Amino acid sequence: MPIDWDDIAHVTKVDPAEPLPEDSDVLDHTDLVIVGGSDGVTAENSSTAVEHIRDSVPGTPVFQEPYSASHVSGDTLDAVDYLSIPAVYNGDRENFVAKHVDFFTEVGSKPDDALGTGLPIVGDLIADRGRQAVTDVAEKLVGEGYVIQNLDSKAAAVSGVDTTYSAEEVAGAALATESFYGFPIFYLEYSGTYGGPRDVEAAAKYLDDTALLYGGGIRTRRQTREILDAGADAVVVGDCFHDDPDQFLQTIP
Amino acid sequence: MPIDWDDIAHVTKVDPAEPLPEDSDVLDHTDLVIVGGSDGVTAENSSTAVEHIRDSVPGTPVFQEPYSASHVSGDTLDAVDYLSIPAVYNGDRENFVAKHVDFFTEVGSKPDDALGTGLPIVGDLIADRGRQAVTDVAEKLVGEGYVIQNLDSKAAAVSGVDTTYSAEEVAGAALATESFYGFPIFYLEYSGTYGGPRDVEAAAKYLDDTALLYGGGIRTRRQTREILDAGADAVVVGDCFHDDPDQFLQTIP
Repeated sequence: MPIDWDDIAHVTKVDPAEPLPEDSDVLDHTDLVIVGGSDGVTAENSSTAVEHIRDSVPGTPVFQEPYSASHVSGDTLDAVDYLSIPAVYNGDRENFVAKHVDFFTEVGSKPDDALGTGLPIVGDLIADRGRQAVTDVAEKLVGEGYVIQNLDSKAAAVSGVDTTYSAEEVAGAALATESFYGFPIFYLEYSGTYGGPRDVEAAAKYLDDTALLYGGGIRTRRQTREILDAGADAVVVGDCFHDDPDQFLQTIP
Repeated sequence: MPIDWDDIAHVTKVDPAEPLPEDSDVLDHTDLVIVGGSDGVTAENSSTAVEHIRDSVPGTPVFQEPYSASHVSGDTLDAVDYLSIPAVYNGDRENFVAKHVDFFTEVGSKPDDALGTGLPIVGDLIADRGRQAVTDVAEKLVGEGYVIQNLDSKAAAVSGVDTTYSAEEVAGAALATESFYGFPIFYLEYSGTYGGPRDVEAAAKYLDDTALLYGGGIRTRRQTREILDAGADAVVVGDCFHDDPDQFLQTIP
């Protein structure tokens, strides 16, 4: 399913390690769902979350955003529209090029090779399926150019982020995404705090073909509007989906 | 000028800091020229080299592959078909993402901002031309996924490469280029030594849309054929263009 970002203004990030709300009908109001998290996530609970979402909103696109090898399986890969892989510009080398080369070295390794458990992502998948998995994975993969702007967040810790970007550097990372790396998504992550429109405006001026997502601290329709008006294609709303459906509904534009 | 790699089997790398041969007619036999080097290169000698090549072989595509800010000017940008920017997978962070974000931060900075001399690439260009330069640069830019396999080379030193890749990692880097980064070129650089077909075979099996270039130690037609037969789109020949035209002609497939 190709994604038309003109139709998408509100994205829900679902953490498969958190309890899902009994009534997931609130997802009727969101345009796309991303399944992913950093603590306690497994391929099994990811798969369960994706099934639950598919049952609730069959027409809504679903991405999986894995943080490690163990989150992806043949089941999750079959179930989602895309596997979105963060490339964290302000993270350490391990979380940019090294991780990706390791990933694709693993994907490309012959299926009859011994696959060590220390290797990242899709080891088990390749073992299950053999060479076809290379094509399956490559076709579903989308890169996300990421900037993480909250140093106190779990996202910053797992990506080796120890410095935030100025608005000028955010603009530079956006332009690098659009003109050089060609990732289809540029993602500004404020992770739990509301960052306001400054970085969104800086990034938006250089993004034509790239979708601009903003995540972090959105709890009101006014904030959603402020971010969309600043040039984001969509806001990403996470926490309150799990614990406060009424609050969640207030973030719908 | 869009590049059709089906027409290109032999590439000449011209170092603008080296004397050009009096008779550059040997370039009639090459399919594409890349201008670049690491020692003593300036925008002025790059520009002179490009002019000389254009005069000798007007129909042949010319790339500039800058190693730093000071190699690019409005003149060089106008004169070349593409500006090719290495992304060295086995280099340090400074030579992958950090360099690119710095580059685009510079490109994207407002032209009326003060541009420090410590900033990488195109500072002067932006100062000359203002905002239009952003579009000019972005349109001419192509990324090259690079693996440098000779630790004793200048290329390794300037890119922070302290480890070579196994054939499996070369395959992984090739697949990352094809499926994730989407750079149009994957470049295996043995820089002065002949690496043989092993890594070319490893990379070729995962490259469909990406051009595969091999450079390093090519001095005979047999070596050229061995590399092309292993799956490279083209060999890149450097040193002997400058100092031994007869030898150079022997590398033409």
